[in-house]
Amino acid sequence: MSVTAAAGFEAAGVEAGLKASGGLDVALVVNRGPRFDAAAVFTSNRAQAHPIIWSKQAIDDGVVTAIALNSGGANCFTGPQGFYVTHATAEHVAEILDISAGDILVCSTGLIGEPLPQEKVLAGMTAAATALSTTGGDDASRAIMTTDSKPKTVTATGTGYTIGGMAKGAGMLAPGLATMLVVITTDAAVASAELDRALRDATRVSFDRLDSDGCMSTNDQVSVMASGASGVTPEPQEFAALLTSVCNDLAEQLQADAEGSSHEIRIEVVGALSEDEAVVVGRSVARNNLFKAAIFGNDPNWGRVLAAIGTTDAAFDPYAVDVSMNGVRVCHAGAPDRSRDEVDLTGRSVHVLIDLATGDAEATILTNDLTHDYVHENSAYSS
Amino acid sequence: MSVTAAAGFEAAGVEAGLKASGGLDVALVVNRGPRFDAAAVFTSNRAQAHPIIWSKQAIDDGVVTAIALNSGGANCFTGPQGFYVTHATAEHVAEILDISAGDILVCSTGLIGEPLPQEKVLAGMTAAATALSTTGGDDASRAIMTTDSKPKTVTATGTGYTIGGMAKGAGMLAPGLATMLVVITTDAAVASAELDRALRDATRVSFDRLDSDGCMSTNDQVSVMASGASGVTPEPQEFAALLTSVCNDLAEQLQADAEGSSHEIRIEVVGALSEDEAVVVGRSVARNNLFKAAIFGNDPNWGRVLAAIGTTDAAFDPYAVDVSMNGVRVCHAGAPDRSRDEVDLTGRSVHVLIDLATGDAEATILTNDLTHDYVHENSAYSS
Repeated sequence: MSVTAAAGFEAAGVEAGLKASGGLDVALVVNRGPRFDAAAVFTSNRAQAHPIIWSKQAIDDGVVTAIALNSGGANCFTGPQGFYVTHATAEHVAEILDISAGDILVCSTGLIGEPLPQEKVLAGMTAAATALSTTGGDDASRAIMTTDSKPKTVTATGTGYTIGGMAKGAGMLAPGLATMLVVITTDAAVASAELDRALRDATRVSFDRLDSDGCMSTNDQVSVMASGASGVTPEPQEFAALLTSVCNDLAEQLQADAEGSSHEIRIEVVGALSEDEAVVVGRSVARNNLFKAAIFGNDPNWGRVLAAIGTTDAAFDPYAVDVSMNGVRVCHAGAPDRSRDEVDLTGRSVHVLIDLATGDAEATILTNDLTHDYVHENSAYSS
Repeated sequence: MSVTAAAGFEAAGVEAGLKASGGLDVALVVNRGPRFDAAAVFTSNRAQAHPIIWSKQAIDDGVVTAIALNSGGANCFTGPQGFYVTHATAEHVAEILDISAGDILVCSTGLIGEPLPQEKVLAGMTAAATALSTTGGDDASRAIMTTDSKPKTVTATGTGYTIGGMAKGAGMLAPGLATMLVVITTDAAVASAELDRALRDATRVSFDRLDSDGCMSTNDQVSVMASGASGVTPEPQEFAALLTSVCNDLAEQLQADAEGSSHEIRIEVVGALSEDEAVVVGRSVARNNLFKAAIFGNDPNWGRVLAAIGTTDAAFDPYAVDVSMNGVRVCHAGAPDRSRDEVDLTGRSVHVLIDLATGDAEATILTNDLTHDYVHENSAYSS
């Protein structure tokens, strides 16, 4: 049910001819109220697509009535005409739905630097507006897919309210944010300031800790809309926890569908001086191509883990570090421990546990291995 | 002639049984004087191998009489026994050659975390000392190879003196330094302080700007020894320039032999606010897996270049940047310019020119593409 699981929302996904491969490529998610609180976080890449520039202004007042999305083109580095397409999309949707363009977020995903055909987008939005329904969430989740092999949706139930969501993203998965489009909806009554706080807390420990290929997108956007249609005002901590679990669920779906990957790798860093340092260490390992290629080859090459840690400025003594892989401690105090041969990496799931033996802080980073298929998918002129 | 091109040096390369694949794996380079000035720079990885820890102490007084090298094992994270092997190697060579162990540098390369068999190393050093000759440079350059497909050597002639060198390195090629072992010799008379200055200046603009796969080694070491055997004291600027050209020549040989690569990519960043910022931008592009995979596929995907620039904190306006590939300006002022179809990337050599349009500083980073063969070579449990 995706973004239409929560009461007060309608959605649709239609085919507008934007994707060379065909299929659904324009989506609309509309909040019918009674409340219109919203929050959003955006890529920290300084090269930002036109829809990001637009949406950052639109979210400013914490009110959003609709989100217009398209795949088949990122509308990034497409010149003044590109910004006009984004602007026209919001104006067009506003006119059809009789709402304010300034309350509409726009999201685009696809190839950078290719013009987005305005007529097709606007015609797609018209068709999507006509198709809006309270069961349209699944179509919407399919319409935002690019190289994703399947749609990513989630539904979670709180005390008298629901949170639903959809996500796309399979490449350019990296922190701040993990290169994706995500729309989350809830029928809880939550003021925009609280939504914003909860969303930032949730993304910090979920999407921001997914680093599939170290490449940060120009189009990342995670939005949440609250309709209040359930009539329930949740206890803030409960809502924040449920929102975090929704984000974690979607982040794990993104990881599992990362382009060409054959392993999901969970890098757990413990014994760090601070949570920030644990994140830095985990990220450095997650971005080490030699380590990632070794995991692809089912090789528990802990030397590459230590070499990656050594490139950070986190507090640690290389000769105090322990490294375990799938439960086997292969390195103790910076020296060989149990045999690599005991480590079984033949499954998709890999757990790397790094104990820096310095403090009490910890963090976990999710990543993928570096595979032939990753190279293949990203060397073709298609994404 | 490699390290024995310059007068005053003897070298040898022998087979000691350290490499599973067989072949030469122990090398010795000896300075016969009359002068023994030396300088060295080391990896900036904080996880450092035992030979690095040893050599950093040995170079402290600027005097080196011999360098003992082995492939077939990095002797890194091998516990107290590992440091003892390094120590014993220097003591053993010192005894055979009747020199001081404190004047001997030790270099190791190969797999991290595997014990280096002491008896084989010492027996190899004995054999190498016996085989020392003024024509042994080529054997020495072969004995330090790991996944290199060929030895890397260089000879350059100054005004009455010679500089020669050898290098190994094909993976873990990244900045500070570019993950390698390099030995440079000269028969010029150059005091160690001047050697040190010249070497740091040279590596800063050569090896430090080679970033093949973003992975920094634990064993990098670049050493230079000056015998003074030519009787010539060169003009400092001429010597520095010649040393830089020697380092650049070896850096380009390393780039051309990078594991599994099918393109040599020269990323030239101009119009930067400072040289440091130009380096940061070039490095960010050089480390972007999506960009590197695109080049493998002969795809001039400039959007990925801009996305990589956007992750840095260098001064630039995304909508002022120009990007050219092999002479075709595909992006002007952050928008599409000439057609991608005009760009020919079928050759090995790729020139990416990025104009940040912000200042007058520039820098060039050398890198490689991300290929199936890179993944293959580094997923096998062998390096």
